Amino acid sequence: MNVLVANLGSTSFKYRLYALDGGSARLLARGGFERVTDYGAVIDQAMGELAAAGHKQIDAVGFKTVLGGDITGCLFADESVEKALLDTADLAPAHNPPYAAGIRTFRERLPAVPRVALFETAFYQWVAPAAHRYAVPEAWYKAGIRRYGFHGASHKFMAERSAELLGREDIAAAARNLYLHGPAKNTGAPLRVISCHLGGSSSVTAIRDGVAVATSMGLSPQSGLPQNNRVGDLDSAALPCAMRRLGLTVEEAERQLAKESGLLGLSGVGNDLRDIKAAADRGDARARLAIDALVYSIRHYIGAFWVQLGGCDALVFTAGISENNPWLREAVCENLAALGLELDPAANAAAAPETDLAGKTSRTKILVIPANEELVVARETARLVAARRTNPK
Amino acid sequence: MNVLVANLGSTSFKYRLYALDGGSARLLARGGFERVTDYGAVIDQAMGELAAAGHKQIDAVGFKTVLGGDITGCLFADESVEKALLDTADLAPAHNPPYAAGIRTFRERLPAVPRVALFETAFYQWVAPAAHRYAVPEAWYKAGIRRYGFHGASHKFMAERSAELLGREDIAAAARNLYLHGPAKNTGAPLRVISCHLGGSSSVTAIRDGVAVATSMGLSPQSGLPQNNRVGDLDSAALPCAMRRLGLTVEEAERQLAKESGLLGLSGVGNDLRDIKAAADRGDARARLAIDALVYSIRHYIGAFWVQLGGCDALVFTAGISENNPWLREAVCENLAALGLELDPAANAAAAPETDLAGKTSRTKILVIPANEELVVARETARLVAARRTNPK
Repeated sequence: MNVLVANLGSTSFKYRLYALDGGSARLLARGGFERVTDYGAVIDQAMGELAAAGHKQIDAVGFKTVLGGDITGCLFADESVEKALLDTADLAPAHNPPYAAGIRTFRERLPAVPRVALFETAFYQWVAPAAHRYAVPEAWYKAGIRRYGFHGASHKFMAERSAELLGREDIAAAARNLYLHGPAKNTGAPLRVISCHLGGSSSVTAIRDGVAVATSMGLSPQSGLPQNNRVGDLDSAALPCAMRRLGLTVEEAERQLAKESGLLGLSGVGNDLRDIKAAADRGDARARLAIDALVYSIRHYIGAFWVQLGGCDALVFTAGISENNPWLREAVCENLAALGLELDPAANAAAAPETDLAGKTSRTKILVIPANEELVVARETARLVAARRTNPK
Repeated sequence: MNVLVANLGSTSFKYRLYALDGGSARLLARGGFERVTDYGAVIDQAMGELAAAGHKQIDAVGFKTVLGGDITGCLFADESVEKALLDTADLAPAHNPPYAAGIRTFRERLPAVPRVALFETAFYQWVAPAAHRYAVPEAWYKAGIRRYGFHGASHKFMAERSAELLGREDIAAAARNLYLHGPAKNTGAPLRVISCHLGGSSSVTAIRDGVAVATSMGLSPQSGLPQNNRVGDLDSAALPCAMRRLGLTVEEAERQLAKESGLLGLSGVGNDLRDIKAAADRGDARARLAIDALVYSIRHYIGAFWVQLGGCDALVFTAGISENNPWLREAVCENLAALGLELDPAANAAAAPETDLAGKTSRTKILVIPANEELVVARETARLVAARRTNPK
């Protein structure tokens, strides 16, 4: 099955075409456009490029959509999905409008090709109310103010892959089929995984038996850990306090929390951890603070989720910041012997992908699992389309 | 030494007079007034009542002040304290203005009697920047937007008393003198305590060697755990989202988060846990949710602090909700064997104060320590005044 993954930004369109066959996947083509003003024109152009390269068959188009309020999961992107994206655009202004426009354009240009939306919130459909509700008035909850969670594509792949690596094919199979069949009953020992997706945007997710039970991001993708330039967790009294004390409008205060905060706000150096680490190594105190606050926040959620899971069989690291920085993994794992987790320094320095970095006496395994999020979208899209072919509704 | 503890509300004035002598304390008198409009008049009246009862000597007046921004600690309440209370009144509007007025009135009426402010933030003076900074722009931090922490009087007493009960007189002595001498070097084994103050207002604090290293409340007393009618932790994007979606002004949104949220908002039943528990026991789903969310949040912070402390020697419960509800302690301690904590059901049901409720195999002790916050204020006040007498500046 050939799946086109469409990655839409506010002024960009990137695509990858995969051929999927059972468990294997092959990248057939990739391309992209910047400064896009007319999605129809660039989609036509992309189709032309693919056809010219001999790729005339497209069986489905997959989109990694962010947030659709109550609309979530891995599902066919009909017009209700387009509407949900626009209705919740206030919480994901950079992502939802381009995805709504892109999905609509594919519907118009390639009406016979199924479109699939894999929401970043999809993995959190089964999180219990105690973990996804805020203690707000009922009217706020009815207006959609709850924890949604994000980075679901990445964390769900960690659930699948960690189970495979830990020899739990039962859990892995259930995780692969999660969006088709929902959670499966685990008849074996529990499998408790804490997944750290650390990149420009970061989150930590607690996974029991292949299903997310809690995550660090809430209503918006700017909660949880400090992000590159987004704030992370913050007292809800801070925004009105800043409005009063600094004379900001609510829009300007929101903009600063979304654009001038996070690692950038703390460090004053920039929003790239490489630059911040270099500055900290030169003795820059604010850069050191940004790193310390990031590590503190990662450990905060690891601890919280350790308790919610009643233990942890594997701590998993994925995405650029965690894959490329042994020093960060070391800082995150420091002094956790009381919990039964010990990092092996040599294994951590070598960090061969998908090998256990834990010391011999560690009860918790430590894995670095690289991910390819476009491929994850392609696989989930193919699973849904194949299931529909097998069992048309 | 006779210490008067003055408890000031927006329309109330309550007092207790203690005689303190070394480690012992005796309540000499108590009284109070409601619907107060003139603090000067009721303070004169209180002094008259005390004199009529034969209590003419007052050596100091202690105040449990909430928040003064950078002004914190247990310190003589001079005019800079009055100013700090007013300057930060936006974050503690119910408490700061009456305390500023009350302290000023005592200054005018009893100028020769030392006034001492024990700030609720005092215990958090030594929290590391990584744990007290938010990832906000530098200008926000300079405007005072950081984690302050609250319930410091209660948690600091837990630090003292738990160390005494655990046979660590070295740590206990250091904790008692913390506000006079700052943190002392611990030459013995580390002592790691997680203190749960659960009442109408609730928080969890991590304590290492008698000094707070982290706490659940941040900039305002409405963050952290869901409170009786205050919201607890909330995505910073929620308030502007509610303004847009529900057509609220920022003031009205803040009011709802401070007055109609927390256990009240979740349950719809009320803000008293006894009523909520009764409703949950009758099958009320929203009441059950409020309880589950409270327990979830307590466990979130216990886990987070377990990691920050690198283990936990004692889990301490104090204040009404935790002292009176064995079922709540059981829910909080459920399934923590992986961390080495096990509650003994019979000991928990009996819950004799200051006895260990942990099972025989538990590596972590579990203590219920009742507190008398007025007495805590009196003791801290007496310590400061006695130190000044011994060593006048």
